[in-house]
Amino acid sequence: MAADVADLKTRAERLRELHSEEMLVLPNAWDAASATIVAEAGFPAVATASAAISAMLGYPDGEGAPWQEMFAAAGRVARVVSVPVTVDAEAGYGMEPRELVDRLLDIGAVGCNLEDTDHQAGGLVEAGAHAQWLAGVRSAADDAEVPIVINARVDTFLPASGIPEPDRVTESIRRGRLYRDAGADCIYPIGVRQKHDLATLVTELPGPVNGNTGEYLDLATLREMGVARVSYGPRFYRAALADLKTAVQELLA
Amino acid sequence: MAADVADLKTRAERLRELHSEEMLVLPNAWDAASATIVAEAGFPAVATASAAISAMLGYPDGEGAPWQEMFAAAGRVARVVSVPVTVDAEAGYGMEPRELVDRLLDIGAVGCNLEDTDHQAGGLVEAGAHAQWLAGVRSAADDAEVPIVINARVDTFLPASGIPEPDRVTESIRRGRLYRDAGADCIYPIGVRQKHDLATLVTELPGPVNGNTGEYLDLATLREMGVARVSYGPRFYRAALADLKTAVQELLA
Repeated sequence: MAADVADLKTRAERLRELHSEEMLVLPNAWDAASATIVAEAGFPAVATASAAISAMLGYPDGEGAPWQEMFAAAGRVARVVSVPVTVDAEAGYGMEPRELVDRLLDIGAVGCNLEDTDHQAGGLVEAGAHAQWLAGVRSAADDAEVPIVINARVDTFLPASGIPEPDRVTESIRRGRLYRDAGADCIYPIGVRQKHDLATLVTELPGPVNGNTGEYLDLATLREMGVARVSYGPRFYRAALADLKTAVQELLA
Repeated sequence: MAADVADLKTRAERLRELHSEEMLVLPNAWDAASATIVAEAGFPAVATASAAISAMLGYPDGEGAPWQEMFAAAGRVARVVSVPVTVDAEAGYGMEPRELVDRLLDIGAVGCNLEDTDHQAGGLVEAGAHAQWLAGVRSAADDAEVPIVINARVDTFLPASGIPEPDRVTESIRRGRLYRDAGADCIYPIGVRQKHDLATLVTELPGPVNGNTGEYLDLATLREMGVARVSYGPRFYRAALADLKTAVQELLA
């Protein structure tokens, strides 16, 4: 199942390049078949969505599933596509950087989302400590000779962060800069809904920024704003479940 | 994860009863979230679909996936619902009856589909040998004190069976009778499209018959005809994938 280091390196480099070309659009997959559809449609990389995969496995999101099952599921995605795969690795499951890197490479992943939510204590982890851990991941990836693409998620805009609304932009910039300095390739302030907030973040954050579409932010708008990468999280998986719900209710009628 | 024997016995008995009440409708699930939707909608049992699960895992249908992965996936379905779960166990993965029964009970399943296709050689397995094996499964279930509900699939109507069209009804009756005598609880001649063929099968086969909806066979028609159980196989999973395909192609436009 594991690809060799040279191949992983090539994929990781390709994934990184994709952050400086046309905006990278990632309709997140959750299993082998959905990943195949995304890759065959022509998307140059495949991202997984932890919220979809944990639901599929029967656990709550936010590190509710055992990491073994999450990595096994992500590995099934990586096994069936030839494009680079980036894994939503939540907050890293309490792993030491070296272990996390090894687990990712074992399943053939060359990128990861790493979020700064503290799933044990609630709220956000301390930014400095998180930056240090991200630097450890960068360094472990260097040691492994695979330039894993780190997409550092900044969870400030999530209600669970506890950060008051007026402070979210400033706190996201502070965190994003720390994470970028620590070696993150892309900063992902998840859940930004207002165009002006996202515009400030794109300007103030160093390096590529991951955005989401939404009411005020379609793909064309995000592209114009200079967003480097767009992901959908569990959106397509949830749409599939909503359709199933409708279909089975019709059977009962 | 494994339920105790008394609980499994109760579930198996309930699943069997469901074959003699109102027609049992099973919109097959493929993962924990889809199973939860089916159970919460009010369906009294959940069935898995091997074609969906193997696609989800990244393998071809027809025992293309390792049985360990298939059972692990079915186990995730059984873990999250309280209604009885019946597993599409394909042709039994070459297992001895006792092993098959143990594996099913280990994951909390109380019913199974067992098909008479020979996935190694192609075509159908010899009916007498298959009946003997089904009798072994019945006997192993008796030993385990859980009356596992065996849904014996008759694959005569599938093109890969090699059975000429005019012989399919007769051969299905011959096989179905053998399997019923061997201890199957329900006979499932898959892929019957014509109403008159299915009507003959319902009349000539002893015990409950599993049907499918189709162009000439809606739920109301199947109910009128005395079909005991209706399943959908991978239909809802494939619909979800088709919707994903449309959605991601729209992103590219």
